[in-house]
Amino acid sequence: MSTNKKKPVRIALLGCGTVGGGVLRLLRDNQAHLAAQVGAPLEVAHVLVRNPDRVRVPECEPGWVTTDASKVLDDPTVDLVAEVIGGEQPALSYIEQAVDAGKSVVSANKMLLARHGASLLARASKAGVDLAFEASVGGGIPVIRTLRDSLTSDWVSSVHALLNGTCNYILTRMRNEGKVFDEILADAQRLGYAEAEPSLDVDGHDATQKLVVLSMLAFGAEVDDRQVHVEGIRAIDDVDFRFAERFGFALKHLAIGVERDAALELRVHPALIPGSSPLAGVNGVLNGVFVHGRALGPCLLVGQGAGEKPTAVSVVSDIVDVARARVAGVGGLSTGAIRTTPKALVPMDDVECRYYLRFDVVDQPGVLAAIAGALGRHGVSVEHMVQEARSDNGGSASILMITHTSREGAVQRALREVSGHEFMKAAARLIRIEDT
Amino acid sequence: MSTNKKKPVRIALLGCGTVGGGVLRLLRDNQAHLAAQVGAPLEVAHVLVRNPDRVRVPECEPGWVTTDASKVLDDPTVDLVAEVIGGEQPALSYIEQAVDAGKSVVSANKMLLARHGASLLARASKAGVDLAFEASVGGGIPVIRTLRDSLTSDWVSSVHALLNGTCNYILTRMRNEGKVFDEILADAQRLGYAEAEPSLDVDGHDATQKLVVLSMLAFGAEVDDRQVHVEGIRAIDDVDFRFAERFGFALKHLAIGVERDAALELRVHPALIPGSSPLAGVNGVLNGVFVHGRALGPCLLVGQGAGEKPTAVSVVSDIVDVARARVAGVGGLSTGAIRTTPKALVPMDDVECRYYLRFDVVDQPGVLAAIAGALGRHGVSVEHMVQEARSDNGGSASILMITHTSREGAVQRALREVSGHEFMKAAARLIRIEDT
Repeated sequence: MSTNKKKPVRIALLGCGTVGGGVLRLLRDNQAHLAAQVGAPLEVAHVLVRNPDRVRVPECEPGWVTTDASKVLDDPTVDLVAEVIGGEQPALSYIEQAVDAGKSVVSANKMLLARHGASLLARASKAGVDLAFEASVGGGIPVIRTLRDSLTSDWVSSVHALLNGTCNYILTRMRNEGKVFDEILADAQRLGYAEAEPSLDVDGHDATQKLVVLSMLAFGAEVDDRQVHVEGIRAIDDVDFRFAERFGFALKHLAIGVERDAALELRVHPALIPGSSPLAGVNGVLNGVFVHGRALGPCLLVGQGAGEKPTAVSVVSDIVDVARARVAGVGGLSTGAIRTTPKALVPMDDVECRYYLRFDVVDQPGVLAAIAGALGRHGVSVEHMVQEARSDNGGSASILMITHTSREGAVQRALREVSGHEFMKAAARLIRIEDT
Repeated sequence: MSTNKKKPVRIALLGCGTVGGGVLRLLRDNQAHLAAQVGAPLEVAHVLVRNPDRVRVPECEPGWVTTDASKVLDDPTVDLVAEVIGGEQPALSYIEQAVDAGKSVVSANKMLLARHGASLLARASKAGVDLAFEASVGGGIPVIRTLRDSLTSDWVSSVHALLNGTCNYILTRMRNEGKVFDEILADAQRLGYAEAEPSLDVDGHDATQKLVVLSMLAFGAEVDDRQVHVEGIRAIDDVDFRFAERFGFALKHLAIGVERDAALELRVHPALIPGSSPLAGVNGVLNGVFVHGRALGPCLLVGQGAGEKPTAVSVVSDIVDVARARVAGVGGLSTGAIRTTPKALVPMDDVECRYYLRFDVVDQPGVLAAIAGALGRHGVSVEHMVQEARSDNGGSASILMITHTSREGAVQRALREVSGHEFMKAAARLIRIEDT
């Protein structure tokens, strides 16, 4: 039987900004192809917007547009709701209503998934519908599907990811051009690669929410994103790139998840990685997710982390998945197979890694001994050391140290001890080293 | 209802070498988890081997082992056949029999898929069963699933891939150690990274078969792997790495697929890629598949291309997919959505790219003019040129040229013209440049 004779799958789109426009375009341009994939035609039923006058999407037919949420969510002919509004409310209550009404849901909303993912998954599972969210992390990178389907017979031991394109873009340009953060940020804002209010990106909160979403699938973990240790990139100095490379490292802003027995290490911060790591070559606005599976070994996925088109591709691939399951009468099956449970986070003091430490000091006798002494007293041993006069400032020097694997708590205590000395010209810089 | 109360999905494993052992281990170690994913327990029914005395897999229970193919393939209680024998026969006839008997099939066999993929897909589709083959390309890298599911709403415009771990390993070591091909190959053989008979790998045939399998999904193309232009890495000289890097390139062995209107460009050969390409950082035994989607943009997948464990992870994730579809009563649905059609290949003479050309010549007046003249007469213009005396050979020089984008036919004709000159100390070296 031709797929076009089948009862169509009716879709309601919540939100019609750039991603929504991209979704409507893909649905229209690939109509026959998508119908063949799904086993029935896909049909847009409604497009819910706040202000119809502000819809700028030519693919959006006027007859679809409505501002009445209940008209959309109470419509029994709607099978599937695709949410591309973003933010916590009203997206959350719309999705809850849709699930409770037996509609499957596709969402691109990382904040919502980070905050309410586990409860929404349980709700969807109970209602026998699907909740798919490929577009919530890594734009067009198929990382959610890979964690859910490809690693189904394996266990993820760690995730090291570049989840924020703005951070990666700024760090890449700082490294290539030798310029300071503020200068590159201003230029990135001018070029549209950074928001006017950049905090969500450059302070690491966006990456943290995405890490929490990934952790649901990678580790089956329910975690509050506000409990995750997060540092942004504002404090990165351009000299750190030069020193990092001298030791063979690349400097990146990483979101890290590591399974440690029953607990989970989740943290988001600048980190040094070996220059030979495949992640080191992921530059500019690209995102990258480096997964280590116990049996699989390393697996890196790279692509555009944002943007209308890549995000729309992910939303539509979710729509196809969910619609196909519905047509086949197995809605909710793959969503129901995702199991999550609350997991304790390892306190930062208990994290163990190698550290890059930079001390900007007055160039006088006894300074090195004082620093080395403080580290030694806290059991932190040094693997490499370099001292260099600072060209920008007469009589001062930079001391760089790479430590052996140490406990974070011990390193922080040693730095606090050193911070009292009058020879310290600025706070010591600490960057964790990840051998990924 | 508990999944354990459900009728189990019965699996026959064809072959029990290292990958087969890995599959049995994953099935045993993750039993409950897999049952939850599938919606029913997975149960091994038979393990078909040629010689039971040579089965070295402790997870293989003696009661499973049989040498009688018809006992396995005629068993109506077997739902799913996983083939890890490799090679063309008897694997092909086993799979055909299984499909015709209504059993779904999982295969890790690249040669079989390259030669018979389209007809096997059609056969499976007709029989209403699934044929899954994630493990046939890129070991543990979820590239088949990504092309099939994630890019379902998009069109692939190109694929640039490192599909052979042995080639990548040898080139990486040649580059890092400055040694010649034969020396690194011998060491790789000693270390188990290259076969005693290395031709399938180092001459590019393995990569070609995998490229043909990828092309089925990326471009919906049916192509005979014997029609694809293939060059291996034996002729790569260690000096080419140094020259490549001087121009900012990395030297890799690439499998390339590009859509050109109705035809397809498929070729496998050494190539220079920009040092800033994320593919340039994929070194050692790792494989990498760099896909460009029209809407998606770039998407790179990296991981272990071979090895017992990663390959077994892919086989088992296919088993879960296929078993789940069977339990849900939708077997054959996703396989039936794969559409392929015979596609013409672009003749090599019509390929257009930039070229790296190296001429080892007698260092005498007029040589450069003769070479430049021949290129000019065939319409090939030069973007960069470097001439360097060869330290290893008094009175000789290397001339390096990077051309502007040119037609392969024109470049080859120019090289043939130059090859007649007595100043040429060796055949000119041509390496294509891919801006990926």
